[in-house]
Amino acid sequence: DGCMPDARGDRSKSPAQQPDPDAYLHVVERREDGLVVRGCKLHQTGMINSHEILVMPNNSLKEDEKDWAVCFAVPVDAPGMIYVYGRQASDTRKLEGGKVDIGNIHFGGQEVMTIFNNVFVPWERVFMDGETDFSTMVVERFAGYHRQSYGGCKVGVGDTLIGAAKAIADYQGASKASHIKDKLVEMCHLNETLYGCGIACSAEGRKTAAGNYLIDQLLANICKQNVTRFPYEIARLAQDIAGGYFVTMPSEKDFNNPDIGPLVKKYSTTQNDVPVEHRQRMARLIENLTQGAAAVGYLTESMHGAGSPQAQRIMITRLVDMEHRKELAENLCGVRENPDIDW
Amino acid sequence: DGCMPDARGDRSKSPAQQPDPDAYLHVVERREDGLVVRGCKLHQTGMINSHEILVMPNNSLKEDEKDWAVCFAVPVDAPGMIYVYGRQASDTRKLEGGKVDIGNIHFGGQEVMTIFNNVFVPWERVFMDGETDFSTMVVERFAGYHRQSYGGCKVGVGDTLIGAAKAIADYQGASKASHIKDKLVEMCHLNETLYGCGIACSAEGRKTAAGNYLIDQLLANICKQNVTRFPYEIARLAQDIAGGYFVTMPSEKDFNNPDIGPLVKKYSTTQNDVPVEHRQRMARLIENLTQGAAAVGYLTESMHGAGSPQAQRIMITRLVDMEHRKELAENLCGVRENPDIDW
Amino acid sequence: DGCMPDARGDRSKSPAQQPDPDAYLHVVERREDGLVVRGCKLHQTGMINSHEILVMPNNSLKEDEKDWAVCFAVPVDAPGMIYVYGRQASDTRKLEGGKVDIGNIHFGGQEVMTIFNNVFVPWERVFMDGETDFSTMVVERFAGYHRQSYGGCKVGVGDTLIGAAKAIADYQGASKASHIKDKLVEMCHLNETLYGCGIACSAEGRKTAAGNYLIDQLLANICKQNVTRFPYEIARLAQDIAGGYFVTMPSEKDFNNPDIGPLVKKYSTTQNDVPVEHRQRMARLIENLTQGAAAVGYLTESMHGAGSPQAQRIMITRLVDMEHRKELAENLCGVRENPDIDW
Amino acid sequence: DGCMPDARGDRSKSPAQQPDPDAYLHVVERREDGLVVRGCKLHQTGMINSHEILVMPNNSLKEDEKDWAVCFAVPVDAPGMIYVYGRQASDTRKLEGGKVDIGNIHFGGQEVMTIFNNVFVPWERVFMDGETDFSTMVVERFAGYHRQSYGGCKVGVGDTLIGAAKAIADYQGASKASHIKDKLVEMCHLNETLYGCGIACSAEGRKTAAGNYLIDQLLANICKQNVTRFPYEIARLAQDIAGGYFVTMPSEKDFNNPDIGPLVKKYSTTQNDVPVEHRQRMARLIENLTQGAAAVGYLTESMHGAGSPQAQRIMITRLVDMEHRKELAENLCGVRENPDIDW
Ligand SMILES: Cc1cc2nc3c(=O)[nH]c(=O)nc-3n(C[C@H](O)[C@H](O)[C@H](O)COP(=O)(O)OP(=O)(O)OC[C@H]3O[C@@H](n4cnc5c(N)ncnc54)[C@H](O)[C@@H]3O)c2cc1C
Ligand SMILES: Cc1cc2nc3c(=O)[nH]c(=O)nc-3n(C[C@H](O)[C@H](O)[C@H](O)COP(=O)(O)OP(=O)(O)OC[C@H]3O[C@@H](n4cnc5c(N)ncnc54)[C@H](O)[C@@H]3O)c2cc1C
Ligand SMILES: Cc1cc2nc3c(=O)[nH]c(=O)nc-3n(C[C@H](O)[C@H](O)[C@H](O)COP(=O)(O)OP(=O)(O)OC[C@H]3O[C@@H](n4cnc5c(N)ncnc54)[C@H](O)[C@@H]3O)c2cc1C
Ligand SMILES: Cc1cc2nc3c(=O)[nH]c(=O)nc-3n(C[C@H](O)[C@H](O)[C@H](O)COP(=O)(O)OP(=O)(O)OC[C@H]3O[C@@H](n4cnc5c(N)ncnc54)[C@H](O)[C@@H]3O)c2cc1C
Ligand SMILES: [Fe+3]
Ligand SMILES: [Fe+3]
Ligand SMILES: [Fe+3]
Ligand SMILES: [Fe+3]
Repeated sequence: DGCMPDARGDRSKSPAQQPDPDAYLHVVERREDGLVVRGCKLHQTGMINSHEILVMPNNSLKEDEKDWAVCFAVPVDAPGMIYVYGRQASDTRKLEGGKVDIGNIHFGGQEVMTIFNNVFVPWERVFMDGETDFSTMVVERFAGYHRQSYGGCKVGVGDTLIGAAKAIADYQGASKASHIKDKLVEMCHLNETLYGCGIACSAEGRKTAAGNYLIDQLLANICKQNVTRFPYEIARLAQDIAGGYFVTMPSEKDFNNPDIGPLVKKYSTTQNDVPVEHRQRMARLIENLTQGAAAVGYLTESMHGAGSPQAQRIMITRLVDMEHRKELAENLCGVRENPDIDW
Repeated sequence: DGCMPDARGDRSKSPAQQPDPDAYLHVVERREDGLVVRGCKLHQTGMINSHEILVMPNNSLKEDEKDWAVCFAVPVDAPGMIYVYGRQASDTRKLEGGKVDIGNIHFGGQEVMTIFNNVFVPWERVFMDGETDFSTMVVERFAGYHRQSYGGCKVGVGDTLIGAAKAIADYQGASKASHIKDKLVEMCHLNETLYGCGIACSAEGRKTAAGNYLIDQLLANICKQNVTRFPYEIARLAQDIAGGYFVTMPSEKDFNNPDIGPLVKKYSTTQNDVPVEHRQRMARLIENLTQGAAAVGYLTESMHGAGSPQAQRIMITRLVDMEHRKELAENLCGVRENPDIDW
Repeated sequence: DGCMPDARGDRSKSPAQQPDPDAYLHVVERREDGLVVRGCKLHQTGMINSHEILVMPNNSLKEDEKDWAVCFAVPVDAPGMIYVYGRQASDTRKLEGGKVDIGNIHFGGQEVMTIFNNVFVPWERVFMDGETDFSTMVVERFAGYHRQSYGGCKVGVGDTLIGAAKAIADYQGASKASHIKDKLVEMCHLNETLYGCGIACSAEGRKTAAGNYLIDQLLANICKQNVTRFPYEIARLAQDIAGGYFVTMPSEKDFNNPDIGPLVKKYSTTQNDVPVEHRQRMARLIENLTQGAAAVGYLTESMHGAGSPQAQRIMITRLVDMEHRKELAENLCGVRENPDIDW
Repeated sequence: DGCMPDARGDRSKSPAQQPDPDAYLHVVERREDGLVVRGCKLHQTGMINSHEILVMPNNSLKEDEKDWAVCFAVPVDAPGMIYVYGRQASDTRKLEGGKVDIGNIHFGGQEVMTIFNNVFVPWERVFMDGETDFSTMVVERFAGYHRQSYGGCKVGVGDTLIGAAKAIADYQGASKASHIKDKLVEMCHLNETLYGCGIACSAEGRKTAAGNYLIDQLLANICKQNVTRFPYEIARLAQDIAGGYFVTMPSEKDFNNPDIGPLVKKYSTTQNDVPVEHRQRMARLIENLTQGAAAVGYLTESMHGAGSPQAQRIMITRLVDMEHRKELAENLCGVRENPDIDW
């Protein structure tokens, strides 16, 4: 797991300005054999099933914020590490014992509040200590890869949701309606746009001076910015196609109840050759993805993971050469007379 | 409660074509003293806290579908009535005993599968029986009022969500950022557009031949069509402003735990003068409204309640005078030479 | 004509800060019998066919900007008035002598740079002179009415464009395609939303202390904000439905040319019973409305007329009670305990 | 020039069904030395400055439409070729003799009705004659390349328009306003999304059996579908930033007029160090790109060039494997039990 976002206290204050210095993870002691750090990294996806933690600063740092300019790795079971599991919508359905209402019966995920309560890091696992000059570069590059990665990750989830919408339309007998077909096309269109953006980041990648390859940073931010929008629209369209049953359907316990179950099944049947349980399961999957535990990953993580939308806009501003574009326009309308222009 | 949507079985088939005739509620017996009906009305909001049920047909009916052209009222405890409570996202949080994770601590709602298992209705409470000619009018008028009503109902919820977004931005210290202010304006703009549409339906209402006043049907459908879109965008913006904490925050049990609680609180504190519990509660309210039990009412009901989006589009097609608009254009460009036109 | 927007020089400076004090119209002399004013009002729609000009300040003014706080009326032919006609896209088509390429053969409009070159105004026609305190109120109220009025004005043009799209789809044989029908519905939906917003402003109007009725200011700004968006989308959809011929069609002189005309007509014919000239005229009307002289009024005036989009957003911020909404949220999640709340 | 779209007569009829068989270009004679063809290709960009014409069928063809399944090349001056230049918005400004009102003073373009009036084609330049089986493949591949190409072509124009918006905001003193900066970011975001889609088509290109490389067809259609939307929004934002002056500004003749010119200049000056002519030229460039001759290429060609939006949606339907997505969903919720699935 790669850890970036700190607790951050008051969002309008920088690390050194916070009343609580631990609001951003920082070095509290420098020993002969290593560092001791304290702080908290929020929102860590899949932390509980990771082996190692790679910690980076949250953001650009000023010269007097050396203690926060720290980058290191520790194993997940290092002394002083504390993990607090985050709640998700409908999380306790996993504990109910059933097999239907959970939606996605095979997979799930978690985000974890990851507390470094005076954790010791030996020097050989410290990669940065005080180099505030490089904090921006570390943050931007890690965020860049993370932003691109969503052009794959969220597209896969999107494919599943598209498939779920298609399936339920088939089960309910609505898939021949032209508006349903058109909405499925729109979902695919949006999803493939994200995919294309992800691919483009790599295709435009370049070799750095150090010899490794770096994705195109501008396109990575473009990719992520779209990810903050399109999954929400895809989910909206999925809800349209699904109909309302996925939010009003009785519990699976009602379906299995000897008294009421037969009636619930009777009135949930759509076509004789579609088992009612298929519809039930698919509706729950759509609920899971658009309004349940998986919506955390498909929607809110699409919004904030790898940085909130505004973070990308700041990067776009920084990476687009606006003056060059202004010159293009000035050349075309004759404001700028440039004998050297090559046309 | 006013009941319209039936179980409907295969969506591509009309009532009489369904393998199970009960897929749409219908008359199964005509007695001297009244009717006996069977069927199921889905998605009934607030049914459990209603006193009376008003049943109407689901849709336009053909001449040979007289048995489905039935409109009547029964008390909720009429013999044969069966109610199956629908599940909502995170519904069991209400049973956990806490006061924070539930989000909205005062209110909630329910949708209920409402089964009419051979229910007797005395003649004096039967308002329509077999008048297929009028089924379209009943459906359109009831749906019209229902569609308009969302220009009030969903706007109120929207106001709350806007307020929650403002509150959490204040608590977290982000409310002075220009993009936050702009997103709040956008949320208000969209919400007030819905409000305006709702008001316009009434303002353009007209007296019917029968003497009662009827809202403008076209504008009611316009209103609802916007309701199928804007709350989703308002919710998306609320999630942007809120940050990711509302989907990764630990349980209130963790906050109250004597061992881990103090650390969870420490790292959830944003400003010294904002009690951490305020942030916690507000985050849970935003979760509740955009991804929890209240999202059923704020989002999915906005989509399907009073008819799915396509239902409004069909009505708009029917209610807009396209030929008149075509004539306007033909007059202006000289295709049609109309000496009588009054300009 | 009601005149508001001044020349304004540097947009980041207030009237008194401008290098040229005439950048905003102001009083240059106070005589016994009246005022002398100098300045320029831009973008005046229909000025050339008006009788009287009503001049108001452009914006809120500070105490030391008394000379700009002036409101008065003059006849259009007052000495010192100078009018410079603005250019519009394809304006000279009106001078070509034809009857087809002009698009809208009956009507057109103009915006006029209106220069007050030391114009004398007698006292009885001066309505405000130096009352900087009231400048905000004058500006906001005039703008309010103006913003609402677009809920009628632009909707009428929209109806015509919808009719033109329907007509050309009929002529070209595409009107039965489901995507065409759906796009027409969308155009109507957007257009009627604007209409609804306009109506709502009046319906929510209130009597002022002075006894006149004032529209609802918030809804007027909502209305206009939508007007800065939807006509652009309506025009985009019209271009989709129209096909590309309206931007590649030969001149009407080519159609009438004895050599080439017959071939041009042959290859422009779509259906035997649709005169080729009908298609030609309708295509030109669509060009006129979306990319020609009338696009000035339908699109750019929808954007800036009665104030640019950001002007409405500032007003929305001012008129929405955000603290009230915050309280609603705080009540619901228990941050605020209010025993007096009426639920 | 590569020629595809025919005159097409009634859009609801296929080539063989048209009353006029020439509505789609076809073979009218088969001679020993070659073919004679007749018909008309519409909307040919840059035809007048091409050397050779490559003609392809317009669409998929049925077995009995062999005469329309023809593909060949001719030089532009082949006997029987007739070109009719299309009109564009404000086209005659190029003839007015000025240097400002034309907007883009260096470049322009044209679309041409290209009539094949019994044109002879020798056999060695005939590439297809009657192979209806291959018509779909030819059409789809040519269209694919064409659709991808817009991910470069329209992005370049977009860059210019972004630069023009930045320039005019600088000239007018508005470029420090946060909403202006944000709108420029949005324009860049949309434009770079198109660029990313274009790049992705190539990056995902594959070697065909014949040995050449073919772009990814699905992504090409995704790219183009976005091109039918984003340039319109970019243009809308440019108009917002520009202010209204670009549609109400007097003629350059007024600026140069000895009487009125000085006043027009005075009231068009925004900042002392910005020559008024710079603002004037930039405003005209924005008019040119969003509402003038170049809007044909930037907007309407973005809509219809390489196929109308619906054409891409049909291709997306065809190219997306919906059943695979349905299986993904069915696996996840347990409708399908697949012991072989690799997770
Ligand atoms: C939260 C919630 C609250 C509600 N509250 C109430 C209430 O208080 N009172 C009440 O009476 N009703 C209520 N409704 C019901 C509402 O009217 C229905 O949800 C609505 O009519 C859609 O029906 P459905 O959900 O069964 O979806 P479906 O009808 O299954 O629709 C699913 C999709 O298929 C499409 N579709 C379905 N049939 C066709 C067809 N024949 N041709 C083309 N497309 C088709 C739809 O357009 C939609 O996109 C509520 C619904 C919800 C979700
Ligand atoms: C489901 C989920 C999964 C995640 N997965 C991971 C992961 O695997 N690894 C990882 O490292 N991180 C992960 N993240 C964290 C992610 O990077 C953060 O959510 C993101 O940086 C935003 O931080 P925040 O959620 O604390 O929101 P906040 O920073 O509180 O932002 C809330 C709002 O305030 C605005 N704002 C905040 N500060 C400012 C400011 N100074 N000026 C202007 N506006 C401001 C933001 O733009 C946003 O609109 C995940 C987040 C979520 C929600
Ligand atoms: C500015 C411009 C530049 C162009 N440049 C080139 C070029 O360089 N080379 C080239 O080969 N081509 C070029 N094109 C042509 C382009 O491919 C066509 O415009 C496009 O194929 C659409 O054809 P159309 O314009 O005749 O519209 P139409 O086909 O008349 O379409 C109008 C509307 O009707 C719909 N429609 C039409 N037929 C049907 C149907 N059967 N079923 C359902 N809906 C239907 C369309 O989807 C569209 O919404 C250009 C077009 C334009 C406008
Ligand atoms: C076609 C048309 C018809 C019109 N008809 C009329 C009419 O009939 N009567 C009438 O009185 N007026 C009319 N108007 C004028 C209209 O009110 C103005 O266009 C509007 O106020 C914007 O002014 P502007 O065009 O000079 O743009 P600018 O003020 O130059 O605005 C350009 C951009 O800069 C931004 N901006 C400008 N100043 C600031 C600032 N200080 N801070 C932040 N951002 C800023 C704007 O928001 C906008 O995005 C018309 C305008 C047009 C285009
Ligand atoms: Fe994550
Ligand atoms: Fe309801
Ligand atoms: Fe105007
Ligand atoms: Fe072209």
